[in-house]
Amino acid sequence: MSADLAQLVTALAQRARAASLQLATATRSRKDAALETLAALIDASHADLLVANAKDLASPEAAALSVAARDRLTLDEKRLRQLAESVREVIALPDPVGTVLDETIRPNGLCIRKVRVPIGVIGIIYEARPNVTIDCAILCLKSGNAAILRGGKECFYTNTALAALITRALADAGLPADAVQLVPTTDRAALTTLLKLDRLIHCIIPRGGESLIRYVTENSTIPVIKHFKGVCFVYVDAAADLAMAEAITLNAKVQRPSACNAAEQLLVHRTVAERFLPTVARALAARKVQLRCDAASRVILDRAEVNTTAATAADYTTEFLDYVIAIRVVDSVGEAIATINRDSSSHSDAIVTADEPAARRFLAEVDSATVYWNASTRFTDGFEFGYGAEIGISTDRLHARGPMGLPELCTYKFLIEGTGQVRP
Amino acid sequence: MSADLAQLVTALAQRARAASLQLATATRSRKDAALETLAALIDASHADLLVANAKDLASPEAAALSVAARDRLTLDEKRLRQLAESVREVIALPDPVGTVLDETIRPNGLCIRKVRVPIGVIGIIYEARPNVTIDCAILCLKSGNAAILRGGKECFYTNTALAALITRALADAGLPADAVQLVPTTDRAALTTLLKLDRLIHCIIPRGGESLIRYVTENSTIPVIKHFKGVCFVYVDAAADLAMAEAITLNAKVQRPSACNAAEQLLVHRTVAERFLPTVARALAARKVQLRCDAASRVILDRAEVNTTAATAADYTTEFLDYVIAIRVVDSVGEAIATINRDSSSHSDAIVTADEPAARRFLAEVDSATVYWNASTRFTDGFEFGYGAEIGISTDRLHARGPMGLPELCTYKFLIEGTGQVRP
Repeated sequence: MSADLAQLVTALAQRARAASLQLATATRSRKDAALETLAALIDASHADLLVANAKDLASPEAAALSVAARDRLTLDEKRLRQLAESVREVIALPDPVGTVLDETIRPNGLCIRKVRVPIGVIGIIYEARPNVTIDCAILCLKSGNAAILRGGKECFYTNTALAALITRALADAGLPADAVQLVPTTDRAALTTLLKLDRLIHCIIPRGGESLIRYVTENSTIPVIKHFKGVCFVYVDAAADLAMAEAITLNAKVQRPSACNAAEQLLVHRTVAERFLPTVARALAARKVQLRCDAASRVILDRAEVNTTAATAADYTTEFLDYVIAIRVVDSVGEAIATINRDSSSHSDAIVTADEPAARRFLAEVDSATVYWNASTRFTDGFEFGYGAEIGISTDRLHARGPMGLPELCTYKFLIEGTGQVRP
Repeated sequence: MSADLAQLVTALAQRARAASLQLATATRSRKDAALETLAALIDASHADLLVANAKDLASPEAAALSVAARDRLTLDEKRLRQLAESVREVIALPDPVGTVLDETIRPNGLCIRKVRVPIGVIGIIYEARPNVTIDCAILCLKSGNAAILRGGKECFYTNTALAALITRALADAGLPADAVQLVPTTDRAALTTLLKLDRLIHCIIPRGGESLIRYVTENSTIPVIKHFKGVCFVYVDAAADLAMAEAITLNAKVQRPSACNAAEQLLVHRTVAERFLPTVARALAARKVQLRCDAASRVILDRAEVNTTAATAADYTTEFLDYVIAIRVVDSVGEAIATINRDSSSHSDAIVTADEPAARRFLAEVDSATVYWNASTRFTDGFEFGYGAEIGISTDRLHARGPMGLPELCTYKFLIEGTGQVRP
């Protein structure tokens, strides 16, 4: 990489760090004013934004995208109205900064208060999704963090146009314009430099496919909160209400197969396999879901004349994100738990059962961010949890696990007041 | 590295992961029983432990250690009694696992409980300190985490002897013996392999010098919680009680200069510099503290006939861990805050003042883990905070910041109970 590019990225991070110190003590009303202005600017800029988006869509990079990815890149009038709406929703949320999390007076008289504060500078590394640019910018702003946004090259012109609106909104509200910055190049070398600036950037959140997350994890010396894959399980227990089990399995699989909280794996207890599998398999097949089966489930479904394929070992740990499900028969709740703890991605896993002790054991022993009893895995989501916003779903265990809202974009500091205390 | 070594480390981590799943649901009484046995085994094994320690002290590696490091490596009867005592103190602490952190019922009837659970498998990378072996083992055990301990080679025989006692204590209590494992080699290549096992190990805590922490940060794909350096500041404001300021400065500097929360830097407001500096400088000099001064403080101390040296630029950001302090004169609380936010390590910084608005501004704007008003920086410590234990002091912002006790060795998971809810 040229020294110029390294210098450009470093200077950008230095400006972000300086802006973060100002933003950390900004009042809620000032931050909300910037959000109000941004929403109005988006409403007033449809024509410019659509021109920029059309330029992206006409690029050779966009031509190489899948139909689904191209759809996510595409803006239209309706999506622009939704974008402005999402900004207004964040205005309504409480400011997470300043909450006193704990307060104690020590025997020596020291008063120790643990107070929620912004993390500082957050780098968001993502792909070709213009809504992520706005989502991340507004959530970082509301939580008092400076944001460095590095989106995909397929979205460069759209992101540049959106970032210009954010900059204007910040300046209008008297906030530092550098509080939200777009990396003005999609050169991979610029990203590599960015990921080493651990004295200026405090947290990296990658949002995207497996190769992006892997690249960021391997190259970053800055702490990373991964938003990785969901290999989610539904386990139908011996004591399951089978109608409920069918409804949950179908919902978890087909309500939105491209979501990380969609089910990819179905485990069925042997004692109900004969009754449950044919019915659920026909319902899944009717929704065009491919069934990849172990030997035991295949025998049952063959007899029921349902079309299946034999699962490979890889199928049992794959995030299909598609109309595909792997099916296995297990002998006990213990085997289900062990299978999930070995093969799932520890994201969201469910048991369907009327047997409370089995359910309690499953909830306690399944080592996943979100464990369900008699509900669909699709509820793992910041909005469904009542957070009012979501920057993503952490698949890490440190700092935040599961859906991340505004408080999860904060850290804390200790404010200690004394009267001259010294340590004996 | 040989394939054998990679295999050995991977197999060790696999056993740790399996043990962690058992340990996560172990009862408090079982964990405390293992700790009771461990304390008794330490008491009964003084002779063996001292023989192992003598073997370490006689090694060429130990001969190369500084006097202070050699002292930290050395065990004697008194220190062994303290070691057993530290185990008994952890028995008395509450079990952090299982605490319900939040509970909500959603409009659709889903009950969402956020429950504290162990992180899983924690790798501790440290240097030649046998007490760290015991401290980390017992804190991980009490918090339900499996621990992989990788200590310095100078301490290999002592650590091996201690680890054998831990294994016996675990087995006696009916807990998996693999819940605490010592990496049975100090080969650097084994560490490098370990730091890439991100599917088996969930958190790395390095404790040691700058080069160790740097190495771990650059080579780990597992999330790291750094326990890095403390370049701590005392700022003596225009409105300071100067006797209090002198007591705090002296305590922060000389009560234990080798600690990360000791002060390395003194800032003095110009209006009190003439009155404050000669007195504090004489008191520091009487305690053999070297004074490295900026031009303004040097002029004052020259006139007062106190011996000083001119500070270099590097002195202003150095963690001396020694009887050395750098001194600068500033013109305002704003300049003090900006200086600290630029030059400190964001660990622990203090203001001494009777001016409440200045103090409030300092507390709000200094971007450090622990910010003091009228108290010594030396209080940044898990025991001083009332945690009853401390695995270290995090200099990171994610997950834990400042002193880390048992709850900070945990994450959470969401347990969701429904009655068949599916997502519309």
